[in-house]
Amino acid sequence: MNLELNDRAIQLLEDVLESVDDFRIIHHDDPDTGVLVDFGIDAEGGLDAGQVLAAICMAGMAEVAIVPGQVDGMSWPHVSVCTDFPVASCLFSQYAGWQLSVGKYFAMGSGPMRAAAGTEGLFDKLWYREQAEQVLGVLETSKLPSPDVFEHIATATGVAATDVVLLVAPTSSMAGNLQVVARSVETAMHKLYELGFDVQRVRSGFGTAPLAPVAANDLQGIGRTNDAILYGAQVTLCVNGDDDTLSDVVKKLPACTSDAYGQPFLEVFEAAGRDFYKIDKMLFSPAEIVLHNVDTGRVHHAGKLAPEILRRSFLG
Amino acid sequence: MNLELNDRAIQLLEDVLESVDDFRIIHHDDPDTGVLVDFGIDAEGGLDAGQVLAAICMAGMAEVAIVPGQVDGMSWPHVSVCTDFPVASCLFSQYAGWQLSVGKYFAMGSGPMRAAAGTEGLFDKLWYREQAEQVLGVLETSKLPSPDVFEHIATATGVAATDVVLLVAPTSSMAGNLQVVARSVETAMHKLYELGFDVQRVRSGFGTAPLAPVAANDLQGIGRTNDAILYGAQVTLCVNGDDDTLSDVVKKLPACTSDAYGQPFLEVFEAAGRDFYKIDKMLFSPAEIVLHNVDTGRVHHAGKLAPEILRRSFLG
Amino acid sequence: MNLELNDRAIQLLEDVLESVDDFRIIHHDDPDTGVLVDFGIDAEGGLDAGQVLAAICMAGMAEVAIVPGQVDGMSWPHVSVCTDFPVASCLFSQYAGWQLSVGKYFAMGSGPMRAAAGTEGLFDKLWYREQAEQVLGVLETSKLPSPDVFEHIATATGVAATDVVLLVAPTSSMAGNLQVVARSVETAMHKLYELGFDVQRVRSGFGTAPLAPVAANDLQGIGRTNDAILYGAQVTLCVNGDDDTLSDVVKKLPACTSDAYGQPFLEVFEAAGRDFYKIDKMLFSPAEIVLHNVDTGRVHHAGKLAPEILRRSFLG
Repeated sequence: MNLELNDRAIQLLEDVLESVDDFRIIHHDDPDTGVLVDFGIDAEGGLDAGQVLAAICMAGMAEVAIVPGQVDGMSWPHVSVCTDFPVASCLFSQYAGWQLSVGKYFAMGSGPMRAAAGTEGLFDKLWYREQAEQVLGVLETSKLPSPDVFEHIATATGVAATDVVLLVAPTSSMAGNLQVVARSVETAMHKLYELGFDVQRVRSGFGTAPLAPVAANDLQGIGRTNDAILYGAQVTLCVNGDDDTLSDVVKKLPACTSDAYGQPFLEVFEAAGRDFYKIDKMLFSPAEIVLHNVDTGRVHHAGKLAPEILRRSFLG
Repeated sequence: MNLELNDRAIQLLEDVLESVDDFRIIHHDDPDTGVLVDFGIDAEGGLDAGQVLAAICMAGMAEVAIVPGQVDGMSWPHVSVCTDFPVASCLFSQYAGWQLSVGKYFAMGSGPMRAAAGTEGLFDKLWYREQAEQVLGVLETSKLPSPDVFEHIATATGVAATDVVLLVAPTSSMAGNLQVVARSVETAMHKLYELGFDVQRVRSGFGTAPLAPVAANDLQGIGRTNDAILYGAQVTLCVNGDDDTLSDVVKKLPACTSDAYGQPFLEVFEAAGRDFYKIDKMLFSPAEIVLHNVDTGRVHHAGKLAPEILRRSFLG
Repeated sequence: MNLELNDRAIQLLEDVLESVDDFRIIHHDDPDTGVLVDFGIDAEGGLDAGQVLAAICMAGMAEVAIVPGQVDGMSWPHVSVCTDFPVASCLFSQYAGWQLSVGKYFAMGSGPMRAAAGTEGLFDKLWYREQAEQVLGVLETSKLPSPDVFEHIATATGVAATDVVLLVAPTSSMAGNLQVVARSVETAMHKLYELGFDVQRVRSGFGTAPLAPVAANDLQGIGRTNDAILYGAQVTLCVNGDDDTLSDVVKKLPACTSDAYGQPFLEVFEAAGRDFYKIDKMLFSPAEIVLHNVDTGRVHHAGKLAPEILRRSFLG
């Protein structure tokens, strides 16, 4: 089965490229590489750019919107995500599972190009890999990738470097910030995957998270966007199958089940020597989770928001 | 006047049929019948399928969306509906007023085919009936209709059986569940009709209701989707004319005005021997209603949510 | 730089004119004038008409939507606005800065025609003016403009009278009411302008305000729509630059900083002898403001909702 995630994402991008000025993005044209679209490095980006970046990063298989909400009694826009393809859109595409390291260049890679490379264990376990004529990736980075980054991705995905399409934005840009906060459902899906849950049982998902204020720098940006998820994301998943596994897994699912929970993420990150891999994996999850079992009608609920931590993170 | 409700619904369906896999629906092709589209019997459906099913059932004359909300302190997606044609979209089309009974086959029928049949008293009283080359109906059922169901509808609506378009989904499927919960405005409109109010005075409407968790079976589904409306729906209607009739009718409008109010609908249903017709008609209405008189500027408000009953219904 | 605000608005209108009946608007065809579209004088309009009127008035550079919300514990639809071009969409286009006075005809004029006339001081200070082949304006009025109004605008904008496109709606019509309530971000932008703040620093904005109930007459309508903003609007702006100016300006920004704050607008208006110009300019601003500094990551917050005043205004 080929879901054509790369084709879907590229098709969505083509519409966007017809009005680059309206999205405040920059379309770089370099004959040695494929398409390079700057959503937040030299480009300014914005709320619209962030929404389409998130939608493209989910291969167009989700609706992304900005909706009103509250943080600790203050008016606060939230980013909502709705998908009937949570495994494909979140795990095969949106999850930032490709740590690109080419010479001195480093970036977190997400988007459907990951499915074409298929090097992450996730693709073996979930039996998915796709062959594509062009591949699309989203890089969370504050540096434009050079031709050798395109070459590197081309080799890993089996296409020519001119068939690699890259969308780039730093965490602390308007669009880059929004596309991370659009990961409410994805974070729930990935935690389920880490817990060994059969993620194919998740049939649909809806989630929201507060739009973190764009940060002064990428370090603060990592802190705030993680806080938006850990302390501010609310996710509802439609799941099938038995309830025992659900009542068991839901207890482990929200961020509050981690020992690292309870302080702004940046403090956790600093305490871990800025090494993601020393942080408890169980922390990376939405604040509140509701599982609807569409087979049995049972509902499983766990977690809650932590608005006072969000206030410290966003206004502190 | 012909609002072409059937044409509008069919046109909307045609777009949907171009991507059946994305909606997880099944397009059956049987030369003896018209188009049959399964949104939840053998098909899985989903949140997108439910939204378009609801929109088609309203003849495309309403916007249907999934929005964030709360149920008794828990994060809970809601279904919103917005229409400038509440009589046409809700009463002439969406209301499940056609009890289809063909041999052993039974289903609640809604959608614009009702206006082509025009056999319900409502069409006499509201002076509407439409001639259509093709008719479209939505059946709330867990069984695919056989060719004689198409024949039956064809005879009643004056078209050939091959010109009958049927969309089917059980109450306890993802799409079927969502399309019932999208009846917040419709329930208010129908209660106004039952109360003898001149429904043409209602010019526009906006409503929301919590997305009931998909039930284990259709019986539980009927309970939960009704609870979503009776205890969780909030409707605002823009109405014209005098205020005396409004201040009078608003007091009778919310579900809480019925003696049957106060317990999960399934308990009411069981107490009535599972016979809808023994239940107080006044019960079928949103929890909270706001009427804006666009002529006089007066606002009439009645009712409120009953989150604790929703919790019992959804999580009990 | 020509943002082509008039072209954008006219293009959006052209789509709308393809289904005037669905929007319940009237397209007048007079060979002596340009296009005249009635959104609420003889036309009924509605929620859809109001949304597109607001979007066209912002030159299509904003998303306008109806979303659920609350007013003093009652269910209440709100109007949300989202834009990456707050200066262009709000100040160059949406702001009602052109007081049209032609013979006995008077109307508040907004829309991109203002940028083609460029007579307001705002266009000098912000260095913008546009040349257009056709110009579009929105008139808040309960009287259809005669040919001499088209002539007057034509002269001021440098086009032929047949190239003037006017959209009209009274404050107390469904669409006219909604398009005023869609001015949450605009009001914040204009107050910033009045305070001497460099408005180009505002890069994006998101705002909401409760949908005021359509009033009995334009006077009450002016009262309620202003109350919706002053006591019910919540606006988040993404701003760049230093924080000292922001922490200073945010304190002056919400409506509550004005001495006139605290009673329904109609009472303020009456006390000022129904003369807008005798009312403290500082009053015209949203109830709550959040500024996100996208350069420094700092957040500045001021103001809060006044639901009890909204209740008096909307239900009193």
